[in-house]
Amino acid sequence: MKEVSIFSPATVANVSCAFDILGFAMENAGDEMVFRKTTQKGIRIVMKNFRELPAQPEQNVAGVVALAMIEKSQPDFGILIEIKKGILPGSGMGSSGASAGGAAFGVNRLLGEPFTQTELVQFAMLGEALASGVAHADNVAPNLFGGFTLVRSTSPLDIIPLHTPPSLSVSVLHPLIEVKTKNARNILKKSLLLKDAVLQWGNIAGLVSGLFMEDYGLIARSMHDGIVEPVRSMLIPLFDELKQAALEAGALGCSISGSGPSVFALSDNGAVAKNVTRALKKVYAGREVPYETFTSAIGQQGCRVLTKSNNG
Amino acid sequence: MKEVSIFSPATVANVSCAFDILGFAMENAGDEMVFRKTTQKGIRIVMKNFRELPAQPEQNVAGVVALAMIEKSQPDFGILIEIKKGILPGSGMGSSGASAGGAAFGVNRLLGEPFTQTELVQFAMLGEALASGVAHADNVAPNLFGGFTLVRSTSPLDIIPLHTPPSLSVSVLHPLIEVKTKNARNILKKSLLLKDAVLQWGNIAGLVSGLFMEDYGLIARSMHDGIVEPVRSMLIPLFDELKQAALEAGALGCSISGSGPSVFALSDNGAVAKNVTRALKKVYAGREVPYETFTSAIGQQGCRVLTKSNNG
Repeated sequence: MKEVSIFSPATVANVSCAFDILGFAMENAGDEMVFRKTTQKGIRIVMKNFRELPAQPEQNVAGVVALAMIEKSQPDFGILIEIKKGILPGSGMGSSGASAGGAAFGVNRLLGEPFTQTELVQFAMLGEALASGVAHADNVAPNLFGGFTLVRSTSPLDIIPLHTPPSLSVSVLHPLIEVKTKNARNILKKSLLLKDAVLQWGNIAGLVSGLFMEDYGLIARSMHDGIVEPVRSMLIPLFDELKQAALEAGALGCSISGSGPSVFALSDNGAVAKNVTRALKKVYAGREVPYETFTSAIGQQGCRVLTKSNNG
Repeated sequence: MKEVSIFSPATVANVSCAFDILGFAMENAGDEMVFRKTTQKGIRIVMKNFRELPAQPEQNVAGVVALAMIEKSQPDFGILIEIKKGILPGSGMGSSGASAGGAAFGVNRLLGEPFTQTELVQFAMLGEALASGVAHADNVAPNLFGGFTLVRSTSPLDIIPLHTPPSLSVSVLHPLIEVKTKNARNILKKSLLLKDAVLQWGNIAGLVSGLFMEDYGLIARSMHDGIVEPVRSMLIPLFDELKQAALEAGALGCSISGSGPSVFALSDNGAVAKNVTRALKKVYAGREVPYETFTSAIGQQGCRVLTKSNNG
């Protein structure tokens, strides 16, 4: 294969109660990336949009991933990566995760797929470390594995793809304001009460069980976060109103996507998700904060090939 | 039905990482109870062993449960309850839960089964409140529902029976020393670090996923408790040696049963569980602490009828 173009999905990490351990991929929101073999060795990055992002491979989220992979596999060719971002950086929808996971996926294809899925996540985590200072996996794991993905442990890395009910759908409202992952992390309390932790892990166990049993009522009852959401939601304009509107429109639950500012809501099917997106929009209509919205099925597949070619 | 005799299983609550939310029933360790209609109204308790336990219904764990149930349903008969305990009080194997859950199950049969499973758990929790001062459900829920049972929330009560891999088996060593549930609760720290909570809930999600997927490796990797076990294990003679011996003998994981002092280990089949029980015994052999052991399948069923009769 000389060239492959791929779709690298946006991801929702944390998923309400499951801070730092759970995420899922979106079906139709994400980046497009093209990977092309070059006779000139090394990695070159071309940003098709967001040209203010660094194109130097060592400073680019996709670049550091690709560099580590060719360092390991020593191919006799170089790779040109074109990136057309569909997810705005700083949205909380796994923008850096999409660049990092997509790079791991695409480079692996050009190399002849020498690496396992888990190894790809490990490479992709280098991109997350560059982007946010923390080599977290809760975006890149669902970006690569698809569906709902549990990161049981980061060290050692242990990724568990969970059963994902096929009709489950997501609505996202992204307020176009900047919340840095680092800041969103720093405002969290460093400790919590044991009794609050017990409530939280009851909900986590309930959410995971609800996914396996396709029990939407249980998923809805479990989507409560008493630890992170109450703190981070203060950074999101009209969060309480968005959440109330989503639930009234039929969503199973609503919380912060990643570290924000995007807000996501899960629904048990696509028609309800469309209504929920409309309800979210209504809350922001006529307000001063610009925004964008997405409605999507859960991406069962993660990164996927769009086209490939053997003609250089 | 004039009379019913039942088996009410021992239960293992907490299950390593899942403090206060998870428990499972044992197949072959438990109490036997007989429920007999009497013309004299009200509840009478006869202790067939452990006669030092109070037989006054208002002070008896089974008694308070039965009293609440006849208060609610107002039958035109009374009930005599004979209790033959197979689980020592204070063992950490759900002894009070077996009396309370068994009472709810047996009385419900004599009444013509007017109550749902969840209502039975609510009645049984009254017995737990009498025994330990806390109306917890993580023993009575698996005692009544069988298998692995999640208590997602106590208020409102939300019980989720989980998929339980059929070959999963348990070994228990019960050191014959007294650890009061109340004391075992008081020594716990009231707060914990967020990063430790995240490790714990990753393992909880892993354990629940492992049960649904029948993935024994995942169950093994998830059975780590960094919060409660390090504190409570100090009250259990040779805990570290027991755990090491269990794991070396092939157990998937090993931790404290309920609030102790019993130690349990899970194995992926009955033959390994037998080996594990032998290994646990070996640790205590020749030591000054008396003990008893159990080896059992997971009780898929919970409380069950042994015999019934329509002849008064």
